[in-house]
Amino acid sequence: MISFNSDYDEGAHPRILEALSRTNYDQTIGYGEDPHSQAAIRQIQGQMGRDCYVTFISGGTLANLTVISHTLLQYEGVVSAATGHIFTNETGAIEATGHKVITCPAEQGKLTPDLIVDALNRHSFVPHVVKPKLVYLSQSTEIGTVYTLKELEAIREVCDSKGLLIYIDGARLANGLAIAGTPTLADFGRLADAFTAGGTKNGALFGEAVIIPNPALATDFPHSLRQKGGMMSKGRILGIQFEELFRDDLYIQNGAHANKMAGLLKDGLSAAGFAFLIDSPSNQQFPLLRNKELETLIKDYGMKIWNKPDSEHTYVRLVTSWATKEENVKKFIADATKARTQG
Amino acid sequence: MISFNSDYDEGAHPRILEALSRTNYDQTIGYGEDPHSQAAIRQIQGQMGRDCYVTFISGGTLANLTVISHTLLQYEGVVSAATGHIFTNETGAIEATGHKVITCPAEQGKLTPDLIVDALNRHSFVPHVVKPKLVYLSQSTEIGTVYTLKELEAIREVCDSKGLLIYIDGARLANGLAIAGTPTLADFGRLADAFTAGGTKNGALFGEAVIIPNPALATDFPHSLRQKGGMMSKGRILGIQFEELFRDDLYIQNGAHANKMAGLLKDGLSAAGFAFLIDSPSNQQFPLLRNKELETLIKDYGMKIWNKPDSEHTYVRLVTSWATKEENVKKFIADATKARTQG
Amino acid sequence: MISFNSDYDEGAHPRILEALSRTNYDQTIGYGEDPHSQAAIRQIQGQMGRDCYVTFISGGTLANLTVISHTLLQYEGVVSAATGHIFTNETGAIEATGHKVITCPAEQGKLTPDLIVDALNRHSFVPHVVKPKLVYLSQSTEIGTVYTLKELEAIREVCDSKGLLIYIDGARLANGLAIAGTPTLADFGRLADAFTAGGTKNGALFGEAVIIPNPALATDFPHSLRQKGGMMSKGRILGIQFEELFRDDLYIQNGAHANKMAGLLKDGLSAAGFAFLIDSPSNQQFPLLRNKELETLIKDYGMKIWNKPDSEHTYVRLVTSWATKEENVKKFIADATKARTQG
Amino acid sequence: MISFNSDYDEGAHPRILEALSRTNYDQTIGYGEDPHSQAAIRQIQGQMGRDCYVTFISGGTLANLTVISHTLLQYEGVVSAATGHIFTNETGAIEATGHKVITCPAEQGKLTPDLIVDALNRHSFVPHVVKPKLVYLSQSTEIGTVYTLKELEAIREVCDSKGLLIYIDGARLANGLAIAGTPTLADFGRLADAFTAGGTKNGALFGEAVIIPNPALATDFPHSLRQKGGMMSKGRILGIQFEELFRDDLYIQNGAHANKMAGLLKDGLSAAGFAFLIDSPSNQQFPLLRNKELETLIKDYGMKIWNKPDSEHTYVRLVTSWATKEENVKKFIADATKARTQG
Repeated sequence: MISFNSDYDEGAHPRILEALSRTNYDQTIGYGEDPHSQAAIRQIQGQMGRDCYVTFISGGTLANLTVISHTLLQYEGVVSAATGHIFTNETGAIEATGHKVITCPAEQGKLTPDLIVDALNRHSFVPHVVKPKLVYLSQSTEIGTVYTLKELEAIREVCDSKGLLIYIDGARLANGLAIAGTPTLADFGRLADAFTAGGTKNGALFGEAVIIPNPALATDFPHSLRQKGGMMSKGRILGIQFEELFRDDLYIQNGAHANKMAGLLKDGLSAAGFAFLIDSPSNQQFPLLRNKELETLIKDYGMKIWNKPDSEHTYVRLVTSWATKEENVKKFIADATKARTQG
Repeated sequence: MISFNSDYDEGAHPRILEALSRTNYDQTIGYGEDPHSQAAIRQIQGQMGRDCYVTFISGGTLANLTVISHTLLQYEGVVSAATGHIFTNETGAIEATGHKVITCPAEQGKLTPDLIVDALNRHSFVPHVVKPKLVYLSQSTEIGTVYTLKELEAIREVCDSKGLLIYIDGARLANGLAIAGTPTLADFGRLADAFTAGGTKNGALFGEAVIIPNPALATDFPHSLRQKGGMMSKGRILGIQFEELFRDDLYIQNGAHANKMAGLLKDGLSAAGFAFLIDSPSNQQFPLLRNKELETLIKDYGMKIWNKPDSEHTYVRLVTSWATKEENVKKFIADATKARTQG
Repeated sequence: MISFNSDYDEGAHPRILEALSRTNYDQTIGYGEDPHSQAAIRQIQGQMGRDCYVTFISGGTLANLTVISHTLLQYEGVVSAATGHIFTNETGAIEATGHKVITCPAEQGKLTPDLIVDALNRHSFVPHVVKPKLVYLSQSTEIGTVYTLKELEAIREVCDSKGLLIYIDGARLANGLAIAGTPTLADFGRLADAFTAGGTKNGALFGEAVIIPNPALATDFPHSLRQKGGMMSKGRILGIQFEELFRDDLYIQNGAHANKMAGLLKDGLSAAGFAFLIDSPSNQQFPLLRNKELETLIKDYGMKIWNKPDSEHTYVRLVTSWATKEENVKKFIADATKARTQG
Repeated sequence: MISFNSDYDEGAHPRILEALSRTNYDQTIGYGEDPHSQAAIRQIQGQMGRDCYVTFISGGTLANLTVISHTLLQYEGVVSAATGHIFTNETGAIEATGHKVITCPAEQGKLTPDLIVDALNRHSFVPHVVKPKLVYLSQSTEIGTVYTLKELEAIREVCDSKGLLIYIDGARLANGLAIAGTPTLADFGRLADAFTAGGTKNGALFGEAVIIPNPALATDFPHSLRQKGGMMSKGRILGIQFEELFRDDLYIQNGAHANKMAGLLKDGLSAAGFAFLIDSPSNQQFPLLRNKELETLIKDYGMKIWNKPDSEHTYVRLVTSWATKEENVKKFIADATKARTQG
């Protein structure tokens, strides 16, 4: 069985395991004060070209709920695309911290200045509505699309004019970073108030970097991190991993490899006549399978059923990663092509 | 520098790293459905001699807040020793989920039936007070003491008669398990509604097992785990570690080694004339140092300042672990003895 | 200025003030244990033909957030029409207690069995989504429509089959009760797990009755009431008012009068050629005014701008109450007719 | 039966009922925008000699939880005397909004600069503890004592130096205001960041004024008020009452009368040989009764059992109000004296 089910179906990049082994018998102090965490922070700051608060946390939902609840006052809400992970997949994690998620019907999974202004307009009946204060974006998005630099700059502009802050969920940030024309780490440092750089799906055993360029949001962030259960006592386990990912360009290279494999899938399946839910440049692809094709392919390949536009067809999600082997991609394309031809 | 600062200052037991390396290139499904997590669950159930809900989570505070908020209705509170970790060290994590922590002035860090009844009596002015519903215990406690089986049975009895549930924070469960006369895993399965078996301080890179013998509390627990950010997408990372810790008696052996090293410290320092805050049978020891001794020893040894009973003395905390070397313990005893002799 | 702005623009029915004056120099115990509150409870139970938990609370939002947070576990959500007051007008009150409001695109402001099933289907990806547990309905609805008995019975049936509970926001319950074919108090006692009977908009100075036919939800409700700030120390102020409203048929008569006045408005404006947003049988009417008509009428009449379907027209909301005078209704119709004729 | 059980056992001052009757048939807009609420605000500002945010809310617990949750960030806590109402009597209302109540062992129910500094010292282990941010005081206190102006100034000074804010629960503010040497309304305007002026126990049917001299806390307060259910749609009902209470010196005169009646009780019982729990200058008195005296007196008089220092004696709470009649006080003294003499 070859899995294209998700990028978290893999283990860790070998350099991560080597680094953990190499440092295993050191004794270091806890709660992120250790030299590895500190080195990782400096490396990320270096790649951003900017001095700002950075810390590490065990997972993406924990990062989202900690940053968002740290940022918002009790009567403030967060604006998200209706496809946003915080709205669709995190069991009401944000609401559980007391905050409404205000959704926008975002085409292609992306917010726009117009959608943000519309959300504000829907919340003008003060004080009977929550106050939109934070805009939540994902890069790359939950359906594989990406914000261009220009798009993010336009969102920043409208947010500045309306007093809104921006938080970017970077569970798949590396896949975004590896695409030309999208924001770089330096751009995120300039355009986001806070963002994450996901490790779990990009070569780490687990873990996300939380990066907070806005100093006001960085204030007392360790209190929130500790309170929500995100501050690991043995913080070095995260530090060592991110030290390795950002020692050189491993982080972005992992994302680039995943995108390249996804590009092969996209090209190969397109050539075989498959349509796609959306034109995704990143490591998630959503081809439309006939049900018979699905039945055949799912015997040998892990994939996620996305939705069924009609009784005869199914969109599936195929995800590649830093670990995806080209031979497996080719095998899938061949088998899918065969299924279509015979269908 | 040799650290007795905390048991989270260490890396992982070599078998853990080997297991992670051995499985690294497998692809497995996420969110704890993988075969390693499932095997680890069966092993823990086997050692408990009981079929019950088991899952894994990245850290202790996250375990505490998830279990407690899952268990309590909004107007219910949790009873804890005033030394309880949830009251003293977790930045209001429980209150942040909406629940009051009701404290008891517990000598030696341990609750008793009398203290629990007293807490109930202090909350009899219904409905103007929260309803005590859950009793929080730690084994071993925050100051190194342990509940005997008999003590835990007596607490269970009073809880049953009063409609209270029991949750045991096992961040240092292995250190308790390794002491004769204390509850075994099977006993915890019989006497606790929920408990944790800590991995972070006992040989894992990180992670705690959450074990819920009470089926009513197990219902929908994955929802709470997901909501609070504790369900790891790459759940196998936890599963693989606990599969290794509970494959045989590694888990309890790690705790026993830590206790043995702490026993050497205790005996050696006692022989040299040092007094202790408390008579601890587990891996935390709290000797009383003269300030000059502290100044000398802290140059070479990591330790935590606990409190200062007067201007001339300081209680420090020394913690041993599965990784503590006997030679380092002996060195510390020798240096401490020398400091006292010369003082 | 004559106001059709809202039914809370009025004072209290004279019998309410008389009752408060009559009892003013009595001394009574607090927190709802007084004889007036107890009598009011018995009267409501009598009109329901059923023994169940009843209490009183100062306002509607407080009632909603107290009942809903009392009912739900932390990972459970409440299903509401997208027009529901808890979603649109209460500043995220429900989310602030930790719960997601799951919305349905309800035509005419009413949920249906199909919409409820659809909401469940959208939340089948367990445990990554909140668990729908409670269905929130309003009678009469925020846009004046009402559930028929048959419609409510159908909703009860689907809720029973799916393990869902029903809570009915009766801020304007009297207006619903006064319409033939809708559920009676006895029906609500049979079909709702909890509901409110609003006093603020129906003759009281302020206050809502909270009625909980489901004994499981009634358990410990005073704790939630006290915790959320809804238990009035001088509880008799609410008790005296509801004792008067439910002493005979004053409660329903107040609602009937409001409906009758609204019916006159509807008939008169229809005859003059005005269209309506919706066919409302209750005390809220939403005629479509040309902008020039609006400019003229708003000088002499209070009304709420509802929405603007195009640049030339505006839907307004006109609300009548127990206190609305027929002469004022006729005056409005005459002025509106004149405005249209001259337009 | 004559009740000294509580000051909420009474109805309303006759001027309140007259004002409600006088205005009953007016139509006014809702949510506190009506002319009566606005006039009441101006009167309070006038008596404070200061322009600041003022609003009204239905009850004291609701005021406390709304102000405190509005003021604090999620990781911040509120410091209170262990006798504070928010800690002892409000069913965890503050914790339910996510915040820890940090208690101090306050003699006589009053915080001091030393107690506050001690609370800070107990929370210096950053970030593992909540951040004390707000100091909660009651005037008069839960056990009848009062802060002098000098004491409040000293608390303000330490709070300023430590970055703490001050909130004063004025459920019985009028009783404090009526005592010489205590802070005036103008003083509270200068020394508190927020405070309440209770109406429920001082002549109103119900209701508390929330006064927020600190502009930063006033920002967006209506959002919090609305979210927590404290913003009454028919806001004029509160406005009319406070307009009457602060039209002249009715508010303070009500408090002065209650204090005077309590003073008579205190003097009369002292003369008869009764001891007191505490030397209270305000409207709550706590005499120590022999059990036989209690049995006799409780047949004819409402009072609250406070605590039992030994098996032979009971402290009771006697509360007077604006409505207490001198003849009833004299009758009680006579009966108590008789009981003691015969005992």
